[in-house]
Amino acid sequence: MTHLPFSGLISFARAPTIDLSSDFSSDVGVLGIPFDIALGFRPGARFAPRAIREASLRYALPPEGFYDLRSGKRKLAGLQMVDAGDVILPSLEPELARDRITEAAKQLKSGVKFPVFLGGDHSVSYPILRAFSDVEDLHIVQLDAHLDFTDIRNDTRFSNSSPFRRACEDLPNLRHVTTIGLRGLRFDEEAVQAARGKGHTLIGMWDCEDLQAVIGQLPVGQNVYLTFDVDVLDPAVLPATSSPEVDGMDYRTAMTLIRETVRRNHMVGMDVVEMTPNLDASGNSNLLIARLIMETLTEVFS
Amino acid sequence: MTHLPFSGLISFARAPTIDLSSDFSSDVGVLGIPFDIALGFRPGARFAPRAIREASLRYALPPEGFYDLRSGKRKLAGLQMVDAGDVILPSLEPELARDRITEAAKQLKSGVKFPVFLGGDHSVSYPILRAFSDVEDLHIVQLDAHLDFTDIRNDTRFSNSSPFRRACEDLPNLRHVTTIGLRGLRFDEEAVQAARGKGHTLIGMWDCEDLQAVIGQLPVGQNVYLTFDVDVLDPAVLPATSSPEVDGMDYRTAMTLIRETVRRNHMVGMDVVEMTPNLDASGNSNLLIARLIMETLTEVFS
Amino acid sequence: MTHLPFSGLISFARAPTIDLSSDFSSDVGVLGIPFDIALGFRPGARFAPRAIREASLRYALPPEGFYDLRSGKRKLAGLQMVDAGDVILPSLEPELARDRITEAAKQLKSGVKFPVFLGGDHSVSYPILRAFSDVEDLHIVQLDAHLDFTDIRNDTRFSNSSPFRRACEDLPNLRHVTTIGLRGLRFDEEAVQAARGKGHTLIGMWDCEDLQAVIGQLPVGQNVYLTFDVDVLDPAVLPATSSPEVDGMDYRTAMTLIRETVRRNHMVGMDVVEMTPNLDASGNSNLLIARLIMETLTEVFS
Amino acid sequence: MTHLPFSGLISFARAPTIDLSSDFSSDVGVLGIPFDIALGFRPGARFAPRAIREASLRYALPPEGFYDLRSGKRKLAGLQMVDAGDVILPSLEPELARDRITEAAKQLKSGVKFPVFLGGDHSVSYPILRAFSDVEDLHIVQLDAHLDFTDIRNDTRFSNSSPFRRACEDLPNLRHVTTIGLRGLRFDEEAVQAARGKGHTLIGMWDCEDLQAVIGQLPVGQNVYLTFDVDVLDPAVLPATSSPEVDGMDYRTAMTLIRETVRRNHMVGMDVVEMTPNLDASGNSNLLIARLIMETLTEVFS
Amino acid sequence: MTHLPFSGLISFARAPTIDLSSDFSSDVGVLGIPFDIALGFRPGARFAPRAIREASLRYALPPEGFYDLRSGKRKLAGLQMVDAGDVILPSLEPELARDRITEAAKQLKSGVKFPVFLGGDHSVSYPILRAFSDVEDLHIVQLDAHLDFTDIRNDTRFSNSSPFRRACEDLPNLRHVTTIGLRGLRFDEEAVQAARGKGHTLIGMWDCEDLQAVIGQLPVGQNVYLTFDVDVLDPAVLPATSSPEVDGMDYRTAMTLIRETVRRNHMVGMDVVEMTPNLDASGNSNLLIARLIMETLTEVFS
Amino acid sequence: MTHLPFSGLISFARAPTIDLSSDFSSDVGVLGIPFDIALGFRPGARFAPRAIREASLRYALPPEGFYDLRSGKRKLAGLQMVDAGDVILPSLEPELARDRITEAAKQLKSGVKFPVFLGGDHSVSYPILRAFSDVEDLHIVQLDAHLDFTDIRNDTRFSNSSPFRRACEDLPNLRHVTTIGLRGLRFDEEAVQAARGKGHTLIGMWDCEDLQAVIGQLPVGQNVYLTFDVDVLDPAVLPATSSPEVDGMDYRTAMTLIRETVRRNHMVGMDVVEMTPNLDASGNSNLLIARLIMETLTEVFS
Repeated sequence: MTHLPFSGLISFARAPTIDLSSDFSSDVGVLGIPFDIALGFRPGARFAPRAIREASLRYALPPEGFYDLRSGKRKLAGLQMVDAGDVILPSLEPELARDRITEAAKQLKSGVKFPVFLGGDHSVSYPILRAFSDVEDLHIVQLDAHLDFTDIRNDTRFSNSSPFRRACEDLPNLRHVTTIGLRGLRFDEEAVQAARGKGHTLIGMWDCEDLQAVIGQLPVGQNVYLTFDVDVLDPAVLPATSSPEVDGMDYRTAMTLIRETVRRNHMVGMDVVEMTPNLDASGNSNLLIARLIMETLTEVFS
Repeated sequence: MTHLPFSGLISFARAPTIDLSSDFSSDVGVLGIPFDIALGFRPGARFAPRAIREASLRYALPPEGFYDLRSGKRKLAGLQMVDAGDVILPSLEPELARDRITEAAKQLKSGVKFPVFLGGDHSVSYPILRAFSDVEDLHIVQLDAHLDFTDIRNDTRFSNSSPFRRACEDLPNLRHVTTIGLRGLRFDEEAVQAARGKGHTLIGMWDCEDLQAVIGQLPVGQNVYLTFDVDVLDPAVLPATSSPEVDGMDYRTAMTLIRETVRRNHMVGMDVVEMTPNLDASGNSNLLIARLIMETLTEVFS
Repeated sequence: MTHLPFSGLISFARAPTIDLSSDFSSDVGVLGIPFDIALGFRPGARFAPRAIREASLRYALPPEGFYDLRSGKRKLAGLQMVDAGDVILPSLEPELARDRITEAAKQLKSGVKFPVFLGGDHSVSYPILRAFSDVEDLHIVQLDAHLDFTDIRNDTRFSNSSPFRRACEDLPNLRHVTTIGLRGLRFDEEAVQAARGKGHTLIGMWDCEDLQAVIGQLPVGQNVYLTFDVDVLDPAVLPATSSPEVDGMDYRTAMTLIRETVRRNHMVGMDVVEMTPNLDASGNSNLLIARLIMETLTEVFS
Repeated sequence: MTHLPFSGLISFARAPTIDLSSDFSSDVGVLGIPFDIALGFRPGARFAPRAIREASLRYALPPEGFYDLRSGKRKLAGLQMVDAGDVILPSLEPELARDRITEAAKQLKSGVKFPVFLGGDHSVSYPILRAFSDVEDLHIVQLDAHLDFTDIRNDTRFSNSSPFRRACEDLPNLRHVTTIGLRGLRFDEEAVQAARGKGHTLIGMWDCEDLQAVIGQLPVGQNVYLTFDVDVLDPAVLPATSSPEVDGMDYRTAMTLIRETVRRNHMVGMDVVEMTPNLDASGNSNLLIARLIMETLTEVFS
Repeated sequence: MTHLPFSGLISFARAPTIDLSSDFSSDVGVLGIPFDIALGFRPGARFAPRAIREASLRYALPPEGFYDLRSGKRKLAGLQMVDAGDVILPSLEPELARDRITEAAKQLKSGVKFPVFLGGDHSVSYPILRAFSDVEDLHIVQLDAHLDFTDIRNDTRFSNSSPFRRACEDLPNLRHVTTIGLRGLRFDEEAVQAARGKGHTLIGMWDCEDLQAVIGQLPVGQNVYLTFDVDVLDPAVLPATSSPEVDGMDYRTAMTLIRETVRRNHMVGMDVVEMTPNLDASGNSNLLIARLIMETLTEVFS
Repeated sequence: MTHLPFSGLISFARAPTIDLSSDFSSDVGVLGIPFDIALGFRPGARFAPRAIREASLRYALPPEGFYDLRSGKRKLAGLQMVDAGDVILPSLEPELARDRITEAAKQLKSGVKFPVFLGGDHSVSYPILRAFSDVEDLHIVQLDAHLDFTDIRNDTRFSNSSPFRRACEDLPNLRHVTTIGLRGLRFDEEAVQAARGKGHTLIGMWDCEDLQAVIGQLPVGQNVYLTFDVDVLDPAVLPATSSPEVDGMDYRTAMTLIRETVRRNHMVGMDVVEMTPNLDASGNSNLLIARLIMETLTEVFS
């Protein structure tokens, strides 16, 4: 007897829940970060961890794993997964919030092989990454319509436009960022120059017509953290995001880039950010992201 | 540190979760019954247990209880509450579903002083009530726009129009039903005659202008099961219901009737049914019902 | 075997459909007028005839009539009803539209005892009323938040602010208008003076606290046409209207006024206007109006 | 004078309506099956027949047919079409529902050259197909993200996951099923093996990159029943479905596959299932499906 | 020629717009404060200034003022009004945001007789009130379901639960707060005691049944700042708020309390906070608040 | 200090506002035409000028212009832009409305190098084009799913199906229309023949698979007016339109066609029509169109 997708208490893919302060070990650990006061447009990413979890119930993993029609093989058989719930965040106090996020990320990371963080706006990637300061030669692969490497915007250094600028300042082990899917009318020239000055790889959406060339620019043999800003996807495919940019990536391309990144590297963690569930009344955006995470796991653990 | 209402894993009012098959004991136990295939109009009550739980996070009970401004007293201090999750239901097989509901209701009832059932459509009250066949001289107080005492409608005996007809047939201990809030254009004359033949009390919405007179018709000193069909409320107050009837009850009147019922009797359990969360995009209906349940508990445990 | 409310082809309360150009006779006839280009704010009343019809399926009249719990009597037993569909309207050509409305209203009126017109914005009442130019000493009872007696507004004489001004000019048999439910910040002083100059009765929402006094101002023993602008209702009760005014009438008061109007007079027809279904995603507004019409019929045919 | 799309009583493409129990004959007949209690996720397919009919009014067929810009030819000139309304279904009684569906499907099929069934969830295809047990060597072409060949799921043999398993058991004349558009994380291995054991053709969405190869696998010269599960389409193109799967088919590809199927075979009927209109507030999904049906008819009758 | 409500550039009630840094003087000045990161539940109050302005276009004031049907008098004839736009706020930096709000409020206050502030969550009342530190013996009348006098909640002293606690600490001239409409399950006992310790007046919603008694508790002859938290209204009347509490105030009662406050005192300013337009898709909440502000002005300037 | 996109008074891209009757000169001028009573399906285009303006705030142009990542260049540096607000339109009087539109378009055109008109339904292009009767050898490039060259439809000559037929009759200087993106089931044969008789270029959506061939059919070296009917786009990309047609253009193709048109010709103005913001609750359609206009300007002024 198994629950239908609309039934049963909610945890990510029906994984057992744990308390971060307890002893635990698992293959995968999921942590929600319902923080969205650092974005400057349409709020709602605070609801994303909950919405993604609910959608993920449709992908509850059976012990024998998923049967894959294409390959005829079972995937994720025996995978251990835990859900650590959400970081308890303060109202309004961004510095305190960042500290708690870093602390929780460290705790999760210490007990699992592959931590998955559910944002939140993109500003949360900075305090998450602080928990990865011990990873040797850290590389970031960022799927995103925006560079998020701005120094100061709207009088703050910690908005969702700046996480990788801050991370580069704070993490001496952060070697390189590869950003794929860039587009839009408004780029911050200073940020572009700063990123290029660091040697980062900036790949426009227009470059993705030659997908093999893009794949050729991915890191190889590195410790890679994947940050997936859902606005890299075309808004037709994923309407539920604060700052949509037309002419985006389709799901198949995104999964191809994730798959190729995973196959070429050692993955140390991932986040999914900037989901704004209240902007897609159909709930289809949530279902898409839940599947994207599970499908990423089939690559990481294959 | 406590979670904001949009944060943290979900259980009713953040109560600890239990497995019905385990050993447990508590003051209050909550069980969801996400079953809505017995209603004949707008579906969605299957989502109600989840939606009510999520809304209830706003009413997480602190150990010291709620501070009540009006009385200056603490309420529900030290109350024990558990959330047993949802009944695992089959697709499409109504008889099997009813059996599982009865079984789960029995399990919950055996471990708690006051079980709270979150429907589902109103048909679930029948299998729930089968778990109360051991209660001496059972009385039902039903807040509802509709009588739900129809023998057969649309070729079935088990729709949401018939739960109390079936319960009366099956439960020899069921002494009496008091239905309050009746209204609408279409009554089933046979059902009305049958209910009156049983001696049941039928109170129209028009009677509620004299609220004291209605209170005077409530049972006294009985074992009472409360069944709250959310459509007793005015659709302006609670839009999220399958079969709304205008000119309904306001929240204050409903709470008064619940309070007076509780004070005069021994409560054996309650259900809340016919919530259709998808019909109120604001989510306010969910918040209302979560509060109504918590407020009922402050009466039951005072 | 009867259809559930979401099933079956749609006509008003499942009445047989007729072609206006055919020979027909019936107690009640329903005609839709999906015209809303004369309103100056939020469009959508063009969808109202369809939405009201769909909602009315919940009130399909059985041959034996409705059983009324309060009185214990059957209502509308044997009532004949037909649905004449909608007037075929042009795009954009308001004068041609008005002529077609008048012509269709005449055809409907000639074959039924009580015609029911489903608007459309309130401008349609003028061409409808032209079909009643043969009624001796016609009185109008108008439930409405607005007076709709403006001479010219926004450069037109035919908007939804002017139907009764135009009707008074054109119909020598129109003796009197009683408008109930007036409120709002912005009244057209010239229109108020003109209506008062005609001897019309203007009753503010504030006057309705003394409902008996209002009832005392209703016409008696007259040929009455009822025009029901749904914005007379409080927007909490009926959100689906183009120009809502807070602090409006509740359903019970509105039905009381309709009932007392019917009982004191001979009813020659009615319209329901200014429903904007797209402004109430729950559909509850549609259900309310369908019931209001059916409940009005129980008074007209009792 | 013709109605605008928002005006007039509703039947499929404004076809005349018939009673299934009467004598009738026509080229095309449409029957709605508002049944959705066999699906296990988001309900609402019960509203699909009504929603598709309403959308189809935009495609009312003029007697001279549609003028096709591309070919410069008229299409469907003189086509006869009737709308038989919806099957009258019971509440909750699935076996009785299936019997009524089969009976109604037989009646429709007996009077028209090409019957079109509007679901409902995909479980209705099984009772519909029982009406085709007299067709010699029946082939099915199924456009669908899911195989729907599961033996038992969630304790039932009759959910929307099993229609073709049941049909294969019951219809000795059912020779072959070609399923196109399969994808997703979760396949039922037993079902896949069973389908392959029967010799059925299973085509993944990934195979559709080589559309000509897929066309090459279509049946040729057979009696074909087309079952169109709307979730074969990408959710960006058609959001209104219960169980969306990303990375789906676009409209042009779907129409190409339908066209090529029609041209190679003799079509005996079609259904369109799993539309959930309430999940697309824009109504665009309904308009798409109405056009897809009309466009399919231009192929069947050319 | 005047614009219809959906036409024309937007300013509050079509008032001329000014730059706060310029020289200006007017009867009324409007300032938006699109700040909502201090609330702990459902965001969106950042959209309220814009939504209220758009709705207010329906109440554009003609030079001759509004004609009031009830009194037969013109209201607000010749009133001067300016719209100062919105405070330019930083992302994420709450202290900086508060400073800018105070500065802008001072600028507005210096040029107009009656400043109107459009929030924003309720936290903005604190920095606004800092601009009123020069008002002798300042009284506050607060219509609100919540006390908002909490010291620290969710680790911050500056959330929307604390504005009046902070104001009392900072403004020696703040004499007294009268809070009306309190209700809900969860009161902060420490805050209640602190407010009572200050001698503030706390009036529960239950007290409002005797409206005259409540009016009797209003300040008399004082300098009064009115703070209107829209959640004082019943959620049926105003669904668009972050933290709704059932069983709230109706519009007529709210306006009566405002009117009586105005008549008894000298008004120094007002704010309207906690509107969350995205929670009421009908837009009716916005229209209500726009009218409430205009109707308040008719009292202040009469 | 700059406003976040949800803050500040609204004008197109935060351009200064002007009164058309004043003296002004600028590179770009924007004028809204909130007129939608000439469309025959789903209304709401009246809200488009306001919705597009609000979305355009995200693209406020800094004095130094936009930094373009792809080219590394600044775009639109120093561009002058003004927003002239909306035409003041009457209710219901279409001829008067057309005259006002023509007059306002002339005024705008006289003061700016490139006027941008925000519709409104497509009927507004006719009165706009009357303001271009002085342009020598005027060419029109029309991106549209529909031809809009119908003589009479639904009893009117002035609906959104006829603007270019009327323009061709009235403007002797109108040399040629190139329509790209045509598709759908229902073409008006007479209109097609009439357009072809005039020598116009009709390009179906199916032709766009060979985009270079389409580009080869664009005018060269002409005075071109661009009319962009948003329904040329695929409804997945832009759901917010009255009469969607599946299988439409993607954003990149549309921008390519606009770019190539601009590069080959002298642009005299443009309009964007048939946006129906209320059909896309996410607001993403508005954001797309705001960007499309700004991106077009980067081509016109480069």
